[in-house]
Amino acid sequence: MKIYADAQSGNCYKVKLMCALLNIEHEWIHVDILAGDTNAQAFLAMNPNGKIPLLALDDGRHLWESNAIINYLASGSDLLPTDVFALAKVQQWQFFEQYSHEPYIAVARFIAKYLGLPESKKADYQAKQTGGHKALAVMESQLAQTPFLTGQRVTTADVSLYGYTHVAHEGGFELSLYPNVQAWLSRIEALPNYIAMDVSEGKA
Amino acid sequence: MKIYADAQSGNCYKVKLMCALLNIEHEWIHVDILAGDTNAQAFLAMNPNGKIPLLALDDGRHLWESNAIINYLASGSDLLPTDVFALAKVQQWQFFEQYSHEPYIAVARFIAKYLGLPESKKADYQAKQTGGHKALAVMESQLAQTPFLTGQRVTTADVSLYGYTHVAHEGGFELSLYPNVQAWLSRIEALPNYIAMDVSEGKA
Repeated sequence: MKIYADAQSGNCYKVKLMCALLNIEHEWIHVDILAGDTNAQAFLAMNPNGKIPLLALDDGRHLWESNAIINYLASGSDLLPTDVFALAKVQQWQFFEQYSHEPYIAVARFIAKYLGLPESKKADYQAKQTGGHKALAVMESQLAQTPFLTGQRVTTADVSLYGYTHVAHEGGFELSLYPNVQAWLSRIEALPNYIAMDVSEGKA
Repeated sequence: MKIYADAQSGNCYKVKLMCALLNIEHEWIHVDILAGDTNAQAFLAMNPNGKIPLLALDDGRHLWESNAIINYLASGSDLLPTDVFALAKVQQWQFFEQYSHEPYIAVARFIAKYLGLPESKKADYQAKQTGGHKALAVMESQLAQTPFLTGQRVTTADVSLYGYTHVAHEGGFELSLYPNVQAWLSRIEALPNYIAMDVSEGKA
C-alpha cells in the first residue's frame, strides 16, 4: 500500500504512527501541498477533495480522511474495539477531534509555526485560542477519569487526538494547564514501536 | 433511550431520520441552545463538549457526536456495512461531512436562516460559499458514478450528508448546479419510513 502524505501534518502523522504501532509495511510518498501536488489531476482522481493523507491500496482502491484510514488500518487489532458501543465511543472522540479540536489547535499551530504569526493573521490566531482551550479542557475532564480517552485501553481515538495535541504548544497552548492530558501524552509515547513526528520531511 | 436534540439542527435531524428509518423507539428531549440548556451543569455531565445531539442509554451511558450516534444506532442493520473497507468508506464520507461540508453549508444556513444575514455577518457568509460549493462538487463527482455515496446501497454516510445538503439552499447554495446530488436527495426521500425535518420544533 501507498500513503500519500506530509509527515509535518498532524493528520498525516496519525497514519504514520498507526503504521509504526502495528508494524504495517507501506510506501510513504511525500506530497508538497504548497507546490500544488494535491490539486494535480492525478491526485484529484484519487481524492476529489484534494487533501492528504490518502491511502492507495495495491488493488487500486483509495481511502481518504485520516481517521477513516487509521480505523481501517487498525481493524482486527487491539487498537480498535469490536464492541458496538466501545467502537462508537472511539468515533465520538474522532469526530470531536475533526470538528472541535483540529480546526482550532492545528490551525493556530499552522499560523504560528508555518506562517510565522504575521500581523494579518493575529486576530485569527487569537480567535483559535478559545476553541482550542475548550477542546483541551474536554479531554482533560475525560483523562482525569480514565487513562485513555475511551477507557482503560489505548485505541485509534487516542492516536487521532495525539496527532495535534502533542504539538499544541506550537500553536500557543500551554499544556501544563492540563496535567491529565500531559500524563496521557506520556502514556502514548511509551507505547511499543512509538515513533515521533518527523519535522524534517520535505526539507532540503 | 433518550435523545437530547433540536430538530431544526441538521446534526440532530440525522439522528431523528436514522431512528425513523430503523423504527427505533426513543424519547426525544428538546434542548434550547439559545436558552443555555447545553451549558447547564447537568448537561455538561453528559457531554463535557456541551453540544447536541446527545444519546442517553437507559443504563446510564452517553454518546455524543451525530455521526457516532447514527453509526451506533445502525449497527447490525443494512445501513452499516460490515466489510472493513466499506465501513471505512462510510467513515471517510462522515469525516468529510464534519470537516469539509458542515462548517461551510450549515454555518452559511445558520447565518442566513437564523441570524437573518445581518450586515456584520455578510463577509463570513460569503467566505462560506466557496468551501460549500467545493464540498457539493466533491459529492457530485461521486454521485455521478454511484447512486449512493459509498456505492450501490444506502448507508449511514448518506444520512450524514443528507442532513445539511437537503437544506443547503437555505444557505444560498443553488442545488440545480449539482444534478446528481439532486437525484440522490430524491433517492433518500423515497426510502421507506423517511421523515422530513421538523422546522416547527421549539416554536410556540
